[in-house]
Amino acid sequence: MLRLLKRTSAKAGLPPGTLLHIGEEKTHDVNISIIDYDPGRVDEKARATIDDLIAFKERPSVTWINVNGIHDVSVVEAIGKAFNLHPLLLEDVMHTGQRAKMEDYETHLFVVLQMVERREDHEEIEVEQISIVIGSGYVISFQEWEGDVFDTVRERIRNGKGRIRLMGSDYIAHALIDAVVDNYFLALERIGEVIEDLQDQVLTDPRPETLQDIQQAKRDMIFFRKSVWPLREAVGILGREDSPLITESVRPYLRDIYDHTIQVIDTIETFRDLISGTLDVYLSSVSNRMNEVMKVLTIIATIFIPLTFVVGIYGMNFKYMPELEWRWGYFVIWGIMLFLAGLMLIGFKRKKWL
Amino acid sequence: MLRLLKRTSAKAGLPPGTLLHIGEEKTHDVNISIIDYDPGRVDEKARATIDDLIAFKERPSVTWINVNGIHDVSVVEAIGKAFNLHPLLLEDVMHTGQRAKMEDYETHLFVVLQMVERREDHEEIEVEQISIVIGSGYVISFQEWEGDVFDTVRERIRNGKGRIRLMGSDYIAHALIDAVVDNYFLALERIGEVIEDLQDQVLTDPRPETLQDIQQAKRDMIFFRKSVWPLREAVGILGREDSPLITESVRPYLRDIYDHTIQVIDTIETFRDLISGTLDVYLSSVSNRMNEVMKVLTIIATIFIPLTFVVGIYGMNFKYMPELEWRWGYFVIWGIMLFLAGLMLIGFKRKKWL
Amino acid sequence: MLRLLKRTSAKAGLPPGTLLHIGEEKTHDVNISIIDYDPGRVDEKARATIDDLIAFKERPSVTWINVNGIHDVSVVEAIGKAFNLHPLLLEDVMHTGQRAKMEDYETHLFVVLQMVERREDHEEIEVEQISIVIGSGYVISFQEWEGDVFDTVRERIRNGKGRIRLMGSDYIAHALIDAVVDNYFLALERIGEVIEDLQDQVLTDPRPETLQDIQQAKRDMIFFRKSVWPLREAVGILGREDSPLITESVRPYLRDIYDHTIQVIDTIETFRDLISGTLDVYLSSVSNRMNEVMKVLTIIATIFIPLTFVVGIYGMNFKYMPELEWRWGYFVIWGIMLFLAGLMLIGFKRKKWL
Amino acid sequence: MLRLLKRTSAKAGLPPGTLLHIGEEKTHDVNISIIDYDPGRVDEKARATIDDLIAFKERPSVTWINVNGIHDVSVVEAIGKAFNLHPLLLEDVMHTGQRAKMEDYETHLFVVLQMVERREDHEEIEVEQISIVIGSGYVISFQEWEGDVFDTVRERIRNGKGRIRLMGSDYIAHALIDAVVDNYFLALERIGEVIEDLQDQVLTDPRPETLQDIQQAKRDMIFFRKSVWPLREAVGILGREDSPLITESVRPYLRDIYDHTIQVIDTIETFRDLISGTLDVYLSSVSNRMNEVMKVLTIIATIFIPLTFVVGIYGMNFKYMPELEWRWGYFVIWGIMLFLAGLMLIGFKRKKWL
Amino acid sequence: MLRLLKRTSAKAGLPPGTLLHIGEEKTHDVNISIIDYDPGRVDEKARATIDDLIAFKERPSVTWINVNGIHDVSVVEAIGKAFNLHPLLLEDVMHTGQRAKMEDYETHLFVVLQMVERREDHEEIEVEQISIVIGSGYVISFQEWEGDVFDTVRERIRNGKGRIRLMGSDYIAHALIDAVVDNYFLALERIGEVIEDLQDQVLTDPRPETLQDIQQAKRDMIFFRKSVWPLREAVGILGREDSPLITESVRPYLRDIYDHTIQVIDTIETFRDLISGTLDVYLSSVSNRMNEVMKVLTIIATIFIPLTFVVGIYGMNFKYMPELEWRWGYFVIWGIMLFLAGLMLIGFKRKKWL
Repeated sequence: MLRLLKRTSAKAGLPPGTLLHIGEEKTHDVNISIIDYDPGRVDEKARATIDDLIAFKERPSVTWINVNGIHDVSVVEAIGKAFNLHPLLLEDVMHTGQRAKMEDYETHLFVVLQMVERREDHEEIEVEQISIVIGSGYVISFQEWEGDVFDTVRERIRNGKGRIRLMGSDYIAHALIDAVVDNYFLALERIGEVIEDLQDQVLTDPRPETLQDIQQAKRDMIFFRKSVWPLREAVGILGREDSPLITESVRPYLRDIYDHTIQVIDTIETFRDLISGTLDVYLSSVSNRMNEVMKVLTIIATIFIPLTFVVGIYGMNFKYMPELEWRWGYFVIWGIMLFLAGLMLIGFKRKKWL
Repeated sequence: MLRLLKRTSAKAGLPPGTLLHIGEEKTHDVNISIIDYDPGRVDEKARATIDDLIAFKERPSVTWINVNGIHDVSVVEAIGKAFNLHPLLLEDVMHTGQRAKMEDYETHLFVVLQMVERREDHEEIEVEQISIVIGSGYVISFQEWEGDVFDTVRERIRNGKGRIRLMGSDYIAHALIDAVVDNYFLALERIGEVIEDLQDQVLTDPRPETLQDIQQAKRDMIFFRKSVWPLREAVGILGREDSPLITESVRPYLRDIYDHTIQVIDTIETFRDLISGTLDVYLSSVSNRMNEVMKVLTIIATIFIPLTFVVGIYGMNFKYMPELEWRWGYFVIWGIMLFLAGLMLIGFKRKKWL
Repeated sequence: MLRLLKRTSAKAGLPPGTLLHIGEEKTHDVNISIIDYDPGRVDEKARATIDDLIAFKERPSVTWINVNGIHDVSVVEAIGKAFNLHPLLLEDVMHTGQRAKMEDYETHLFVVLQMVERREDHEEIEVEQISIVIGSGYVISFQEWEGDVFDTVRERIRNGKGRIRLMGSDYIAHALIDAVVDNYFLALERIGEVIEDLQDQVLTDPRPETLQDIQQAKRDMIFFRKSVWPLREAVGILGREDSPLITESVRPYLRDIYDHTIQVIDTIETFRDLISGTLDVYLSSVSNRMNEVMKVLTIIATIFIPLTFVVGIYGMNFKYMPELEWRWGYFVIWGIMLFLAGLMLIGFKRKKWL
Repeated sequence: MLRLLKRTSAKAGLPPGTLLHIGEEKTHDVNISIIDYDPGRVDEKARATIDDLIAFKERPSVTWINVNGIHDVSVVEAIGKAFNLHPLLLEDVMHTGQRAKMEDYETHLFVVLQMVERREDHEEIEVEQISIVIGSGYVISFQEWEGDVFDTVRERIRNGKGRIRLMGSDYIAHALIDAVVDNYFLALERIGEVIEDLQDQVLTDPRPETLQDIQQAKRDMIFFRKSVWPLREAVGILGREDSPLITESVRPYLRDIYDHTIQVIDTIETFRDLISGTLDVYLSSVSNRMNEVMKVLTIIATIFIPLTFVVGIYGMNFKYMPELEWRWGYFVIWGIMLFLAGLMLIGFKRKKWL
Repeated sequence: MLRLLKRTSAKAGLPPGTLLHIGEEKTHDVNISIIDYDPGRVDEKARATIDDLIAFKERPSVTWINVNGIHDVSVVEAIGKAFNLHPLLLEDVMHTGQRAKMEDYETHLFVVLQMVERREDHEEIEVEQISIVIGSGYVISFQEWEGDVFDTVRERIRNGKGRIRLMGSDYIAHALIDAVVDNYFLALERIGEVIEDLQDQVLTDPRPETLQDIQQAKRDMIFFRKSVWPLREAVGILGREDSPLITESVRPYLRDIYDHTIQVIDTIETFRDLISGTLDVYLSSVSNRMNEVMKVLTIIATIFIPLTFVVGIYGMNFKYMPELEWRWGYFVIWGIMLFLAGLMLIGFKRKKWL
């Protein structure tokens, strides 16, 4: 739960703009990679230094700088200095758990978003903060750890597939955001499978663990929703942004991302409804089972308690009990008891308990 | 559940505008039909080729091209090329599970909508994506499979019934959307009958299967709602659209569709309320039955457990038990027991358990 | 439930503007009545013909035409022709189950509303569509069947009570709408009484039928709400309408109806809350009764099961059971059993079960 | 419940502006009192006549007319005539159960509000309609019965405390509305105490009556909310009203009332949440008690039913039952039974039932 | 509960602007401290007098006046006089339980906010009202009691850390509000830990006390929400405020606080969802335990009640009961009983009750 709160208290009382990493340190290795390209050429540099950044920045071509690991204040500070970024922007980069947002710093735009992953081997969804700075001729992306979400973008630049090499830094920023949004669909698919499993389980074999899984899915959707919801507004603002950094030809693509974000939100709402329906079925299944238990108890008790009373009567030791002396008394009693039992069984049939 | 999510993950990482069919392949047979008409004449061509399309496109008359089956990239691409359609538009056509929307591409308008069908023999509602391109003098409609939803429109063109032959491509587009919206009413009617059945069932014979049917109806409404809700906005935008492709005389008809869409949404909300009321009655019926079971158990146990105790007493083997020797002991005990039983029955009457 | 859906499917595929009566045929007898008046004079004509209509239309005085029964296409068509009404308007008149709305056709305004009635002898509320056409110097009202809702308006015209004879067709239209809204209050009052009865019943004598009545009230409110909610907007638009057909002096009266409509909606919401509270009490009452049943069972079983065990012991046939031989054994056992029973009763008192 | 609906049906069919008292007649005695003041002087007249009103109206000083009892048509009509009030305004005054609203009649403003009282000796909250007409140099307030809510305002005028005597009719109107809003806080306080009591009760001693009290509190909040909610808008409009009747220096005071109204609404929402939480605890407490009952039953039954079986065995009358002959048989059986009982007790301990 | 209502009734009837302390008196010691600084210098004065205030006010440097304890009318009145503050402002300062708001009094701005604290040793969250007056060259903050929330701001001024000494009174006001918002995160963290504990508890050991803790957390969130929600608007207005008192360079910092406030609200909503999920799990756990109890009862009763009947049969004293005479009768009966018991155990296995 504290995942999304991110111990912000550590910063309480510090002046705004103080750089301090808030969040888990998800990788030890801070790692800067650069891809610089124009329509005819791609230069790549892994494990680049701050000096490399400045060198690439000067070039007229498009430079995409990806930073893996954001916990090292000195690195973030150096990048901030090199690209003249506002201290509040750098603070947001290092302080994970931000609300997705888009801010206009005139010479550059700043987008924060939360990537959501549901890994096979993890019980809960995980959230990673991605920060993107869109400048004139460069894009800087900050990731919490080394992930593969941007690999397809890298491939597209390398191969020159699509129009990516022909366009500017706004298009590459779009490609990065698009990659994150595509990732949401992957996460939703996994959660969708989990929900389908749960829908089967509640009907066939509802167990206390099922309830826990339903609750986990519910919590996942709460966090997912919290991560994606503000993105819609951020992407919407970016698409309408009246900044020279966004060219007209990129706007349809941003609108496309906007549509996808709304689709993600729609699906999240649908999943929430489905999960809550699953919970209803679970509770009802449990109560149906209870009913069945009660019925068995009642049938057994209702048949045998009166019969036990009957046999108890003839177990009494009164001196004068005429029936006991009768020749066929024992068998008559058997007859009476079988008749009573039969009567009750018919009654149960009528009430549809059997 | 994945019905509406449509495995979008398959596209993750591909550049936007990449044509790739997403969704079930609902028909093998891709099939283009053309109807071309002016007030005095109707030409039809089934199983048209791309070349036919181009030929008809040149004519001044209104051309309606209907494409059944959207999974063949080459066909969609060829049509796109022939009519100069934007790659993002073609992507949306092939990628089923879009949110209903209306987009203005200046030389043509693009409307996506989701047709909802509740077939008699299917347990769940089915959703089919219909895409409509409205150009100057032509309309292209894309369906996922060969359906009969547009047959009435075809008939009206053939017979020249109503004003359809007198009007342009915007009117035919209106007629197609109208046919889809009319279809919603058909689906709602079937679901309405299901809800009425369920309302009877929960009162007369609530079974675990009833709960499953209620949940299915609930899920159907969730998907139905998700499909229709965004259509309202799309049709609203289309009606207010300031495009030369929409003539003034068609606007009242678009407003009419808008009214119908709101009526569909109203009915969906009403059905949701009714279904949730049915669920309440179901749960309460189940709990009433449980109560009845408990009452029977309690009545039987409360009458016979004390009596069994009484007969147990006189089954004891103490040497000195004066009552056992009494001449009328046995009958007195019977009297006492009948009195006790009577007393309890009166008590139950008072508590209204009988 | 299909009451509000009105088998719209019957129209699926027909061109818009096709006249077809949708809904129950609630009266066989189509019946046109005319009231024509100016400040000094009132002319009435029952069972008027289409020719009468045209004759009255020409007069400078205000003409109110009331049509009972809307299922006869020829009548509606003839009126449409006489007053030059748009086919979509006529379609809405005949197609019951419309959403309340107000539309401006320049030479006339068109208002549709749903009258709600809760008749004493009917279990469910009934909805009747009233359509009103406001033209210059005439008003046409269409009712589904012969009702008495407009009788008070008729009386006021006849008696010249209030200002009705001094004002134009907009005022008479206002009076008709006002009569329908007043009728809502009547319906709400009846439902209010039902809710009060239910609130008593759930406390004193909650039965399964009570639940059905609660659900019926709930459903009634759902349909009531669906009928009234859009009226608010329609009346609001009518009040602000910038049409020469609405004179300035009538606006305060329209604002007054608007206020009443909001009051109706407020009351509906309040009733919904009250009904849902009643449902909570019902469920809780039922569960309280169950608790009482369980307590009785537990008290009886807890007292007598151990005692039965005790008497069972001394019913054993072991050769060597010293107690059996004791002179006062039997009475000692009685003492022990009474002591045990007393102990348990005290325990129950402590737990407040008695 | 009909409290807020106020039998509006009585008016159905009457022309708008017809004066007719709707609501309970809460006092027999219609009673007009006048306070007329300027900074240096206060004149009071209890039990004033209509002629007095006209006399005071002419004076340049501020005149506050308070009318207790609104059921007498002749009085209201006479006042209306004297001050030239619109018939719809007078209708609203007499027709209790209005939604709070503010209307601008150019020469005077009209404010209706609902005072809410929770009297110690009443079970339900009571609602009284207060109508205030703000004219140039006079204010008329209508109350349903003689109350003490305006006494503090009277005192302030008499003593010249605060600025009240220095300001105009808008300030006195503000003071009256403020007094009503202050009264809401009093009512909320009482309800707050009731809720605190209920929160204790559900934990310590939940009884069926507790549920009724919770539901009563819930209903009270529904009516309270319905009464206060529209006031917010009315006061907001009054504060922004562009009328010469509202002087600039009074606006901050109106904004102050607006803030208080929002605070009242906030508190109502909070109370609703608290009540619904209390209901949850109640239901859960009841179900916990049920659990306890079931546990006692199960423990007793589980221990003694098997033991009773054991003693039953040795109560059988078979000729050849070796154990019966054993010297220590009886004691061995006792040992076995004690062992079994101990075993079960340990099992219960493990399951934490004891 | 009355915490947030704050016995406002005490003021009912007093003229607006009357100074009267509403709320608990949380400290006896009213205590004014002054910090006066410019970029090069810091002057501090603890336990300042009203005369000190006036002296410092005249200086051109920035003066921050902090008042601990607001219940002393004479002190608040004197400050109001010295700084020429509006009586309604002073009333708001003394009347705790205000809604967070921001008001523009032209020569000064006024911000009220509610600090929320969840102390380790307290069961409930506590709310303290902080009022801030932002004037030209001075800031006055009012606290209900001596707290340490502003210590970090004091330290930053003393050390000249960050830009605080370089900026004006608007920045210091920002720093104070920021400190309060940071405090929210601290409170949320503690509540987050409580929720995590509760989530564990409901799964491992749900007890009635757990329910109370859940309800307490729920109530805490209701109050927290009520305190923070209006702050969002207040801070938003402050950030957009077109007042010369807010310099352009401070706006990004105000926007930063705005972002944090939204984050707090998001987290509150998330916590509310989590708590309500925890409640669901609790209720379900309780009902699962009940099921287990019922199962044990049913298994025991179902096995032994029929067996007890069987042994009861052979405890009867009929003269002619052939089985009793059989040599192996006793053992045969044992066999039958073991067989029956085994049969039932297999049945239970099948139903998965074991």
